[in-house]
Amino acid sequence: MQTQRLNVMLDSIAKLVRRGALTNAINLLSKLRPVDVAGALVHLPQREREATFDALVKHDLTRAAETLSEMETERAVHLLQALNRDDVSRLLQEMPSDDAALLVAELPEDWQDELLEKMKAEQSSGVQELLGFADETAGRIMTPDYFALDEDVTAAEAITALQLRSEEFEMVFYLYVVDSRNHLLGVISLRQLLLSPPSTPLRKIMISDVIRVTTDTDQEEVARIVATYNLLAVPVVDQESKLAGIITVDDIIDVMREEATEDLYALAGVDADDRALGSAMNSVRRRLPSLLLSLGTALIAVVIVRYYLATIEHKLLLAALIPVVAAMGGNAATQTITVVVRAIGLGELSWERGRRVVFKEALVGLTNGVIVGLIVGLAVAFFFEPLLGGVLALTMIMSLLVAATLGTLVPMTLKRLKVDPALASSVFVLTLTDIITFLFYLGSATLLLRHFKL
Amino acid sequence: MQTQRLNVMLDSIAKLVRRGALTNAINLLSKLRPVDVAGALVHLPQREREATFDALVKHDLTRAAETLSEMETERAVHLLQALNRDDVSRLLQEMPSDDAALLVAELPEDWQDELLEKMKAEQSSGVQELLGFADETAGRIMTPDYFALDEDVTAAEAITALQLRSEEFEMVFYLYVVDSRNHLLGVISLRQLLLSPPSTPLRKIMISDVIRVTTDTDQEEVARIVATYNLLAVPVVDQESKLAGIITVDDIIDVMREEATEDLYALAGVDADDRALGSAMNSVRRRLPSLLLSLGTALIAVVIVRYYLATIEHKLLLAALIPVVAAMGGNAATQTITVVVRAIGLGELSWERGRRVVFKEALVGLTNGVIVGLIVGLAVAFFFEPLLGGVLALTMIMSLLVAATLGTLVPMTLKRLKVDPALASSVFVLTLTDIITFLFYLGSATLLLRHFKL
Repeated sequence: MQTQRLNVMLDSIAKLVRRGALTNAINLLSKLRPVDVAGALVHLPQREREATFDALVKHDLTRAAETLSEMETERAVHLLQALNRDDVSRLLQEMPSDDAALLVAELPEDWQDELLEKMKAEQSSGVQELLGFADETAGRIMTPDYFALDEDVTAAEAITALQLRSEEFEMVFYLYVVDSRNHLLGVISLRQLLLSPPSTPLRKIMISDVIRVTTDTDQEEVARIVATYNLLAVPVVDQESKLAGIITVDDIIDVMREEATEDLYALAGVDADDRALGSAMNSVRRRLPSLLLSLGTALIAVVIVRYYLATIEHKLLLAALIPVVAAMGGNAATQTITVVVRAIGLGELSWERGRRVVFKEALVGLTNGVIVGLIVGLAVAFFFEPLLGGVLALTMIMSLLVAATLGTLVPMTLKRLKVDPALASSVFVLTLTDIITFLFYLGSATLLLRHFKL
Repeated sequence: MQTQRLNVMLDSIAKLVRRGALTNAINLLSKLRPVDVAGALVHLPQREREATFDALVKHDLTRAAETLSEMETERAVHLLQALNRDDVSRLLQEMPSDDAALLVAELPEDWQDELLEKMKAEQSSGVQELLGFADETAGRIMTPDYFALDEDVTAAEAITALQLRSEEFEMVFYLYVVDSRNHLLGVISLRQLLLSPPSTPLRKIMISDVIRVTTDTDQEEVARIVATYNLLAVPVVDQESKLAGIITVDDIIDVMREEATEDLYALAGVDADDRALGSAMNSVRRRLPSLLLSLGTALIAVVIVRYYLATIEHKLLLAALIPVVAAMGGNAATQTITVVVRAIGLGELSWERGRRVVFKEALVGLTNGVIVGLIVGLAVAFFFEPLLGGVLALTMIMSLLVAATLGTLVPMTLKRLKVDPALASSVFVLTLTDIITFLFYLGSATLLLRHFKL
């Protein structure tokens, strides 16, 4: 199998590096694809990784640059910081401007200026231009190296141009058609080009209803468009509809993976830069804020319970049921938030269609609340006391209804306010649900104690 | 903007349908891309959606089939079930076999046989063949319509063949090279083909180290390979290395979205088929099992607390702190599980590299436990009692350490046992963490009460 052969190679490379046989290691590396070289480096301990990469830069700059392009940004930046600055600027010049821009953006500020100056005028200005666009927008992730021709060029001329200039481009699938001032007019697939009579001008072959994004379109929206329309690349235009760059589907796949991780992490209260294989201290830093937030939420519940200690003293079993009270609302809230945030993320749920969803989710919360309430209420009535069962049943209904309603309203409102709903919803919803649930549970128990001598 | 124009169109279509002007509506629909027709249909209420689609089938079968291809499987199946069976079989025949197979697999069994029989012999056998592969494997999602030529064909002949047969294929970017028995030998991109001298045989142009998958490769693994190697399509071979089909990047993007939703939902305890815009009763069914599971977990904690009620009676403040005890371990566990499951999902974390991660995560849990424990312990010591603060601090350390260790070990073990770690980890980890945490909290409090007259 391919993977097995790859693993054997990786082991040999690691052994060679450990023995200091860097030249042999690099010879082996040169037989791998750049992405696998990146994988091999990640497997090495930090010090050996840096030494190997340094040797690779000296020995084969192009391959080192290709490897860097395939690496996770954070890791690539670490490697760059271990090199001398001349090598860094030579490396960045070898890379496509979109990949170089990603790395430069993460370097310390004083480096950035020095680097941009050192890099050749032309290439550097490309990187500088990309850095002028906001993070996570189409402008930042596009590549300015697209293949565009004038509308009067013929199919045959286009094929010749493609043959002459093909070295410049990573991947060509579409030929863009522009006017003399670079306004985007149309698009032609390589296949359509092949099928057209040689003397036809591009104007007559092109599809003029081009799906496009603008430089300020959010990268998540770009990914949605590429996914919806099954595109291999999407052109990026500026405010005047001039072609500024393209984004290819392989970069979109990276965006999709990144956004999926972000959503998943945000809902679990983990910062997006946490990694299972990263350092422990990094993970501590990434997770502590959210833990302290839930500590705050839990302490509010503590204050409520403390306020009702007299009630609990009368009826100790109320204390035994707190784990159920604390758990169920939170679980139901997380379920609702997840479904709603995902629907927002996939572009299915808009503010306008939201009202229907709020009612639907409230109904779901009510139904699940009644079912869970009945089960746990009957169990408590049977094993403990009937009235206590009633209190718990009503608490469950209330808790799950509140959780579902807030779990829908809060993410939708946050989205409307342009705050990331995945990131901020849980704190609000869980805190509010907890407060309402505990107040209802102990408040109603206190009332019943007073009136029915529970 | 494009989206605005599209929304205006969708509103007009909805109005026309409501007035019963189906022919006009279909004329408007015919101006949209198939994926937007699918979007327009989703916006209509069920009854009108079915009527409009029925009219579309009668009026333009090809477009109806294209629309169906762009729709979510579940929705498409609903639409099919409202049609008469003859129309369904005609529709399925118009669709690419991979899309048709997806739909047929979801129809009731008695329909399946009838349909496969009705469909033309050739096409039906294609669908039947795909259905022979397991769900979520490369064999099931591949399309058998690939473009392959013999190794002795020349570049010029290949271009002619492409021009003649291009109608048959959705998207051609790669030309596959096979021997006379259809064994996969190599691959050539359309661009390389254009750049080669016309008389060169394909054998001399092709790249022979082709990245490939087999018919039984899991679709998640296929997505990982396509993403890693930036492919536009990946060839699927059978056990004898014969070319069986290809999977294109647009289908991979669908797989990625599906898998991201599945992971996200699994961690939140929601079944993958839950939808914000679906019916309430569907959502109730999808969420209740997980709620009942957490109810079970919470009830174990109830039993533990009930066992220690005498301790709580002596020291009521122990009850007030239960919300903190119940919350923090669960939160830390969810964080760890999420990071570990994601790393497994992205293929970064293997069983072999797992030991390092277990130690690292345990260290993270210990550190966060000490920090959280110190904060909450000092607060309790200050506002309540020093000894109680000590109990809570130790409980936090214990709880977060256990949560982190189990949160790493359990998903890795499940993966090793070929159980989906996203689906099953939370139940095990949260239950075990809760049990250990509550026993430690109330057990140590009981001991202290006895010895120090807390």
